[in-house]
Amino acid sequence: MPQAAAVATIASNDRYPLGDFLSDIAGIAASTEFVDRKRRSRDYFWYSPILQEKLKDKLADIVVTPRDEVEVVRVAAACAKHRIPLTVRGGATGNYGQCVPLESGVVLDMALLNRIEWQKPGLVRVQAGAKLYDIDAATRPNGFELRMHPSTKRSAAIGGFVAGGSGGVGSVTFGGMREPGNIVAARIVTLEREPRIIELRGDAAQKISRAYGTTGIITVLEMPLAPAQAWIDVIVAFDDFIEAVRFGHTVAMADGIVKKLLSPVEWPVPRHFTAFRSYCPDGKSLLTCMIGEMSIDSFEALLAPSGGMITYKAPSEDLPSKVPLYEHTWNHTTLQMLKSDRGVTYLQCLYPHERFVEAVDRVGKLFGDEVLQHLEFMRLNGYMTASGIPIIRYRSRERLDEIIGGFEACGVMIANPHVVTLEDGSRYKRVDADQLGFKHEVDPMGLLNPGKMRSFVPQAGSAEV
Amino acid sequence: MPQAAAVATIASNDRYPLGDFLSDIAGIAASTEFVDRKRRSRDYFWYSPILQEKLKDKLADIVVTPRDEVEVVRVAAACAKHRIPLTVRGGATGNYGQCVPLESGVVLDMALLNRIEWQKPGLVRVQAGAKLYDIDAATRPNGFELRMHPSTKRSAAIGGFVAGGSGGVGSVTFGGMREPGNIVAARIVTLEREPRIIELRGDAAQKISRAYGTTGIITVLEMPLAPAQAWIDVIVAFDDFIEAVRFGHTVAMADGIVKKLLSPVEWPVPRHFTAFRSYCPDGKSLLTCMIGEMSIDSFEALLAPSGGMITYKAPSEDLPSKVPLYEHTWNHTTLQMLKSDRGVTYLQCLYPHERFVEAVDRVGKLFGDEVLQHLEFMRLNGYMTASGIPIIRYRSRERLDEIIGGFEACGVMIANPHVVTLEDGSRYKRVDADQLGFKHEVDPMGLLNPGKMRSFVPQAGSAEV
Repeated sequence: MPQAAAVATIASNDRYPLGDFLSDIAGIAASTEFVDRKRRSRDYFWYSPILQEKLKDKLADIVVTPRDEVEVVRVAAACAKHRIPLTVRGGATGNYGQCVPLESGVVLDMALLNRIEWQKPGLVRVQAGAKLYDIDAATRPNGFELRMHPSTKRSAAIGGFVAGGSGGVGSVTFGGMREPGNIVAARIVTLEREPRIIELRGDAAQKISRAYGTTGIITVLEMPLAPAQAWIDVIVAFDDFIEAVRFGHTVAMADGIVKKLLSPVEWPVPRHFTAFRSYCPDGKSLLTCMIGEMSIDSFEALLAPSGGMITYKAPSEDLPSKVPLYEHTWNHTTLQMLKSDRGVTYLQCLYPHERFVEAVDRVGKLFGDEVLQHLEFMRLNGYMTASGIPIIRYRSRERLDEIIGGFEACGVMIANPHVVTLEDGSRYKRVDADQLGFKHEVDPMGLLNPGKMRSFVPQAGSAEV
Repeated sequence: MPQAAAVATIASNDRYPLGDFLSDIAGIAASTEFVDRKRRSRDYFWYSPILQEKLKDKLADIVVTPRDEVEVVRVAAACAKHRIPLTVRGGATGNYGQCVPLESGVVLDMALLNRIEWQKPGLVRVQAGAKLYDIDAATRPNGFELRMHPSTKRSAAIGGFVAGGSGGVGSVTFGGMREPGNIVAARIVTLEREPRIIELRGDAAQKISRAYGTTGIITVLEMPLAPAQAWIDVIVAFDDFIEAVRFGHTVAMADGIVKKLLSPVEWPVPRHFTAFRSYCPDGKSLLTCMIGEMSIDSFEALLAPSGGMITYKAPSEDLPSKVPLYEHTWNHTTLQMLKSDRGVTYLQCLYPHERFVEAVDRVGKLFGDEVLQHLEFMRLNGYMTASGIPIIRYRSRERLDEIIGGFEACGVMIANPHVVTLEDGSRYKRVDADQLGFKHEVDPMGLLNPGKMRSFVPQAGSAEV
């Protein structure tokens, strides 16, 4: 996008001094074209009818696409100077409007910062815009792979996953992103007149985890890897959902069985699994798995007394041209259903690790067909449990709140995905104090993704920064 | 050992028809020399003064050393024909007299069945007499290692570990040998006039796990492997044992930190760690660890607020010529102390996974210096817990029983290591029904390691088998 054109189209905007901003970042790719701004102000928030209403008209004023960290620093400095909000955009595969610019201003598209800086055994250092798929493709020849990835692996960027996600395929073994050890280091640029570059290592790196880019612009991440395994995709069909859950739990608790994915899903959701429909028998609930090749015999031995029937078993192929099995798990499950039925939405649950199967069973009996459960086994704080992303037949906001109350009464925690702030979406309804304090250091004027960290109030005097 | 000499020395034995037996196994290496029989009728039972008294005079009549499975079958047939007990011997590194021939007869030394049959990614198929050290040395160049090994890795055989052990270094990640998936297959020879060769796969392979060789002669094992990692040996010193336990538990529960060993050990035990003495500050309790190289920064970040101080950190070297750090964990800890103090013995404990730190603390306050705790974090049934092998200042059998009672009152389960039968040593005080039933199939006359499976009574009519 040539700068001249951009400057020409922004004359009418009177909220921010965009012309001055553009002059200051001369030479950096920027667009003020409506179609660019519209397309790059969105993510997958439309899974939520509530967020759809709230976010559909949000629009960046300018989309800037830096080529390197030097350009990121220049953009940050210019935003600070002109007090223009900056919202960072990765692969934009999130579901909570993480990268939607609530206050307009600049969307910083990180797509070109996609270089792999180095690999060591068990570690990779990458720029934040690198795609998860590309990272895995680069590390696999060296015998390693990312410990976890969202179901959106084929389009998500690592920076967005760390800043906006919480876990995914692989969390059944390694837990979520916030478990100690799952982020080794992060390099960030602060939003100040003279931006600083800060390297956060160890526990400090958690300051940018699931902060939606409110606590610094992540430019580089150092991520731990898992040894690459030969994975086998398996679908097991069960007469009842609770049987799939029970067997899934057995495998989840069997530490001798190597696995990357264990996802029980309730019929009729599998009816919508187009790419795998022939392996989804009518009326059967499924357990969808990725099992280590060396563990597949042991997996089948455990399965024998459970009543489950294997309908699909094949080596995992992760090709750009083919829909992978993992795109039928986590929140892709909702997407598969939304493709043919726009009347549904979803919730995000965390089931208790004790009396786990009972909690799943109770919830199921409470709502019948109005709520279709599917679970993702994952470790949390050292315990095996499952998150759930139940698909809800949407009636109204009030009914959705009733359903949330029903889950909570069964001991299931809800992270509400129909809100845009970090606090409202958190299971604990607050932002980590460390993140809040850190934000004062790195974004004193509150220009990074404003509106997402509700607890943050710029300090008096920050106007003079 | 030439057969002629063997035959000459056994004329005086009137319990078993040894001469006829030797004729039947002509061509197979056998010894009746006293020094061979004495040496190969023992293991490390002498850690227990009670077992020392009970087992020190047990003596095989003949030691047979087959070269291959064909010879094993011939020996088994001859033992069945002449009703001579057969006790299998691996590396003889056990502590419960697992390979001590209580009823004399034949000791079958598996040392020459040490071939690695094949390797595949994540799997190895080996003969039962292969040394753990040699297996790891053979699989490491292919990027794999055994999931777990006892602290006796440098001398133990895989068959003995599976038949006599329960877990070890690596169980903090993979759980014990009995977790589903940790034994893929076992090939056994039955003790019958016409011995059968049976391949047990999947769950069935558990029939030979920790059965002391009473449920068939294991000739081959198919074991799952872990991806080989670059391990860092770390020693952390703490003012108090309970701080070492608490930090160890934190690391144990952190699924993002890759580890193979986490062993808190109470001062003054480390005074006896000769090879590492300079890294064991006076008065400090230790946490001894093997941490994945890619997780070492995260480990140190977690350590920072704990009060612990790293005194040693170096890549794990597993060389025949050098005492490894892991030989100061599990029951090698007891051995390090016994080298200079023969007045101690030990117990085997399983701590509850809930209120774990409290249970350790309570036990510590109960006995003071009479009981020195050291723990081994391990997974069990999907939960993180720890086994403990406390070192006991031995006074009497009665006092030992009192101490056992004290542990049990704190919710700690005891697997008594001062007994020779499977049942008495089990935490559940019984043999798995599956193993007992299976023994009737594979050893109807009860000739395999007689005296170890107390619940077994040969069926009427088995005399005619």
